[in-house]
Amino acid sequence: MLLQTPESFKSRFNVEVRVLNEVIEINKTAKTITIRNLVNNNEYIEPYDALILSPGASPFVPPIKGIKNHLTHSLRNVPDMDAIIALIDKNKPAHATVCGGGFIGLEVAEALRQRNIKVTLVEFAPQVMGPVDIEIANMLHDELEAHGVQLKLGKALQEVSECEPEDQTLTLTLDDQSKLTTNLLIMAVGVKPEVSLAVNADLEIGELGGIKVDDYMRTSDPSIYAVGDAIESPDFVTGDSMLAPLAAPANRQGRLAANVIFGAQETYKKTQVTAICKVFDLAVSSTGLNEKTLRRKAMPYEKVYVHAASHAGYYPGAHPVTLKLLFHPESGAILGAQAVGKDGVDKRIDIIAVAQRAGLSVVDLQDLELCYAPPFGSARDVVNQAGLVATNVLKGDECIFHNDHLTTLNEQQILVDVRGGNEVAKQGLIPGAINIPVDEIRSNLDKLDKQKEILVYCQVGLRGHVAACLLTNLGYKVKNMTGGFKTWQLASR
Amino acid sequence: MLLQTPESFKSRFNVEVRVLNEVIEINKTAKTITIRNLVNNNEYIEPYDALILSPGASPFVPPIKGIKNHLTHSLRNVPDMDAIIALIDKNKPAHATVCGGGFIGLEVAEALRQRNIKVTLVEFAPQVMGPVDIEIANMLHDELEAHGVQLKLGKALQEVSECEPEDQTLTLTLDDQSKLTTNLLIMAVGVKPEVSLAVNADLEIGELGGIKVDDYMRTSDPSIYAVGDAIESPDFVTGDSMLAPLAAPANRQGRLAANVIFGAQETYKKTQVTAICKVFDLAVSSTGLNEKTLRRKAMPYEKVYVHAASHAGYYPGAHPVTLKLLFHPESGAILGAQAVGKDGVDKRIDIIAVAQRAGLSVVDLQDLELCYAPPFGSARDVVNQAGLVATNVLKGDECIFHNDHLTTLNEQQILVDVRGGNEVAKQGLIPGAINIPVDEIRSNLDKLDKQKEILVYCQVGLRGHVAACLLTNLGYKVKNMTGGFKTWQLASR
Ligand SMILES: Cc1cc2nc3c(=O)[nH]c(=O)nc-3n(C[C@H](O)[C@H](O)[C@H](O)COP(=O)(O)OP(=O)(O)OC[C@H]3O[C@@H](n4cnc5c(N)ncnc54)[C@H](O)[C@@H]3O)c2cc1C
Ligand SMILES: Cc1cc2nc3c(=O)[nH]c(=O)nc-3n(C[C@H](O)[C@H](O)[C@H](O)COP(=O)(O)OP(=O)(O)OC[C@H]3O[C@@H](n4cnc5c(N)ncnc54)[C@H](O)[C@@H]3O)c2cc1C
Ligand SMILES: CC(C)(COP(=O)(O)OP(=O)(O)OC[C@H]1O[C@@H](n2cnc3c(N)ncnc32)[C@H](O)[C@@H]1OP(=O)(O)O)[C@@H](O)C(=O)NCCC(=O)NCCS
Ligand SMILES: CC(C)(COP(=O)(O)OP(=O)(O)OC[C@H]1O[C@@H](n2cnc3c(N)ncnc32)[C@H](O)[C@@H]1OP(=O)(O)O)[C@@H](O)C(=O)NCCC(=O)NCCS
Repeated sequence: MLLQTPESFKSRFNVEVRVLNEVIEINKTAKTITIRNLVNNNEYIEPYDALILSPGASPFVPPIKGIKNHLTHSLRNVPDMDAIIALIDKNKPAHATVCGGGFIGLEVAEALRQRNIKVTLVEFAPQVMGPVDIEIANMLHDELEAHGVQLKLGKALQEVSECEPEDQTLTLTLDDQSKLTTNLLIMAVGVKPEVSLAVNADLEIGELGGIKVDDYMRTSDPSIYAVGDAIESPDFVTGDSMLAPLAAPANRQGRLAANVIFGAQETYKKTQVTAICKVFDLAVSSTGLNEKTLRRKAMPYEKVYVHAASHAGYYPGAHPVTLKLLFHPESGAILGAQAVGKDGVDKRIDIIAVAQRAGLSVVDLQDLELCYAPPFGSARDVVNQAGLVATNVLKGDECIFHNDHLTTLNEQQILVDVRGGNEVAKQGLIPGAINIPVDEIRSNLDKLDKQKEILVYCQVGLRGHVAACLLTNLGYKVKNMTGGFKTWQLASR
Repeated sequence: MLLQTPESFKSRFNVEVRVLNEVIEINKTAKTITIRNLVNNNEYIEPYDALILSPGASPFVPPIKGIKNHLTHSLRNVPDMDAIIALIDKNKPAHATVCGGGFIGLEVAEALRQRNIKVTLVEFAPQVMGPVDIEIANMLHDELEAHGVQLKLGKALQEVSECEPEDQTLTLTLDDQSKLTTNLLIMAVGVKPEVSLAVNADLEIGELGGIKVDDYMRTSDPSIYAVGDAIESPDFVTGDSMLAPLAAPANRQGRLAANVIFGAQETYKKTQVTAICKVFDLAVSSTGLNEKTLRRKAMPYEKVYVHAASHAGYYPGAHPVTLKLLFHPESGAILGAQAVGKDGVDKRIDIIAVAQRAGLSVVDLQDLELCYAPPFGSARDVVNQAGLVATNVLKGDECIFHNDHLTTLNEQQILVDVRGGNEVAKQGLIPGAINIPVDEIRSNLDKLDKQKEILVYCQVGLRGHVAACLLTNLGYKVKNMTGGFKTWQLASR
């Protein structure tokens, strides 16, 4: 407990907090719990009228050969952190390996780099930060490497060498049989709901391994409630059960359980999984569903990308925000959003999270009235811009294509880069493209066969849109690549 | 035009932009406009099918004796700014006076201080930044003074001394007959809609002096549309006409007019007046109605204040955000919000602006799921906290009182400061209060007469709330002062 002590809780709220006391059993019939005092090992029994389980989730440490050793740690609480710091102070490791590229893995990697320790990050998936899609994660990959983190993506830890108490080095074997020598191994491959008490009490456990609760946070036993990382909670968009080990939902669930126990008729308002992580100079954030999930669930969706400045470009300190917006292709309902950038990322995802929760659609995002002065935003904010772009797609005013379509280009299509000649000279064309700058299209129509489909792109999508409008008005069949060359580059890293 | 040139507009959009051409007359019957070429003074006529007026608003310069002189400027566009800079470069003024404490006045005052010019700010109202209420503006007053801006609040400029072309000094007389010597006078007392063309064409003008338009941005002539600073637009909360010279609404209105002309059935979604201003190290922002307006319109409202950290206190760089939330006392509808602080102010007002636009109530603010990681927010964000506090008030779970009630304390009331003894020693009590720290209330009940009304307060309202809950449960009649001592201090500056 970082913010309170047992004494402060007692004097302020008249609530008794017993630290170093572990609940070891629940007796549902007797409505009692058995508690072990971890200081003197005494066991004792307490009755309850209502019981709230909030045991959290514990770091998942896979059963890898050799993983139990004094140089391998995971991070859940302050004692864990103290142990890692003590080891660093003692051994002065030159190199550390972080296994797992989620929130905790990335935060640890950054913290280790700040202590000037060389870091290798091993991640089984092809990308870090599972909640976002790979093209967004690719910006993090660049950022991590730029800050000296060596990435081993798509690789799993398979074995750890034997390690004697006096050893300061581990040899790690990855699943491609490559070896890695390291002085500290942090296991951050995820957390699993702490359900042993619930299992032993025969409370219903969901398919994902979390405690099952209803909309009132009640478990299968009506006197027992469960909240936080230990439970499965309903996804805001689909209603499906999921695990979302985040502090804000845990907080809301805790309040709700208390309110329900005291007679309130409130229900849980579902979890959007709004989350954010600082990765060196970048922030990455998301809410709702990502594209991977939408595909997996075979849900219909469309997506647009906007790369726009965090605030007016003519005021110092503006940085691009890359925003991916996922929406229902017919209703325009907001399915999810992801953003990455140096500044203003939290604000944009919060705005979209509120809009999503309120049931607004991408059409409504156009007209959100947001703060504008040059140091804070633009007269048309990133979110408004994303709303405009998505609305054009939704209404059929613009046909778009995505960078993955480029692999199937055929004879009946012309790929046109409408950026300026100097941009193309610097960055190159996408293979197969010809270059006609947007402002020169009118005088180059002879290069464009009206029988063919014209696929245009620019740097971020805006000039591609202008070109597409122009050509559509002239009777061409045109599609614009959403997010432009920048998104293509991110996706093809 | 900062972002485009006539050439770029032509080549990109095939739109002809004629700068230095002034429209001097509209002929509604003939559907033509008369234009004067300001370079060669030729006049010519152009026909229109649809006409959009977007002439903006011009700085209002009151007819004060002596105001027309070469040391007095106002600021609307880049040439105005260049003129001011040229004058500064030439005269090197030691002192400047800014008349008007709105967005532009404050931004100019800051810019002048950055050039190390002494600044006096004269403002007729008792506060700067009209969109917020005085207790919020008082934080700006402190900030301005801390940065060397001398404030003359509640004072109007009455007369300017005569000034010869070679003079570098003006003597200003204020309405309290005090005199002020200055080397540069910036008039920033507001803008007025540019309606001369519209008036001459007999288009309907609203009561506030702006061009009257319907929900489609059509003026009283169906072929003429008007948008931007020149029009009156409907207030989001009340629907009343108002003047809101802001870039984002202007932008939306411009798009809407164009869409309507091309057949769209869209209507204008009203103006919340979401606005923000940087004032040295602070940002001040607001959306919706302020308390002054609610009082003036005799609308029912309640208000709460929250002072909470911009992000988790244990992560470096957190600063308090002071948030005032105005809501309907029965429905909980969000009427308006104001925030001030060093960081995260834009985000909180944007979040509330979206919630307000979406029709969410203060009850919904509790459960907004916002980004949380220590560098960006808290597990329970400022906005969630404000939602909790307002909901308790709305549901009658907490009775609150406001600092202005303190002037009418009577014998049947006991004012109790529940802060710690050391806080009280440092900051003092509110006159008439006794001090019983929240954690010592249970042992000091003898000091509290159950027949009397107990008015509690703490620093920001949280411990006051805890004390109020405790005492209410014990059968006392209790009220908690929303926003606590901090709000009282701000209000009584
Ligand atoms: C390093 C780290 C960083 C994080 N950063 C963020 C972040 O930036 N943003 C975010 O949203 N979330 C973050 N989280 C997640 C967040 O901390 C959790 O979502 C939140 O704390 C969950 O609350 P909880 O009450 O469910 O569980 P916890 O906070 O884990 O509390 C559970 C408590 O129950 C105790 N307990 C378990 N079993 C028993 C038993 N049988 N008897 C008695 N006590 C028991 C545990 O010891 C623990 O103290 C982070 C987590 C970690 C580990
Ligand atoms: C110094 C300053 C700072 C500002 N900062 C902010 C801010 O931070 N945030 C914010 O939201 N808003 C800000 N604003 C307000 C914002 O600029 C306006 O709301 C917005 O520009 C209004 O757009 P508009 O098209 O109505 O008018 P304008 O942008 O003023 O454009 C009107 C144009 O019409 C021209 N015109 C007028 N009459 C005629 C005619 N008869 N013939 C031909 N042309 C004509 C004018 O010369 C002018 O160029 C600021 C304004 C100023 C002056
Ligand atoms: C400069 C300005 C007038 C340009 O207006 P504009 O051309 O409508 O705006 P944009 O250049 O952003 O283009 C918008 C169009 O491009 C599309 N677009 C933008 N980004 C896109 C992208 N990445 N992919 C596809 N399309 C995109 C939008 O959907 C929109 O389409 P539509 O108009 O066909 O429906 C406008 O940006 C503006 O008003 N800026 C504010 C000026 C200002 O800040 N004033 C304040 C002074 S204090
Ligand atoms: C520490 C913690 C458990 C305290 O919980 P709590 O007591 O419910 O929260 P608060 O101290 O904010 O108090 C909330 C109550 O005070 C009231 N309150 C808060 N500020 C107030 C104010 N300014 N004026 C009046 N009332 C106020 C709220 O309305 C609420 O009232 P209610 O509970 O009676 O309805 C909670 O803040 C928390 O979960 N923090 C997050 C921990 C965390 O960050 N974990 C993440 C680790 S990665």
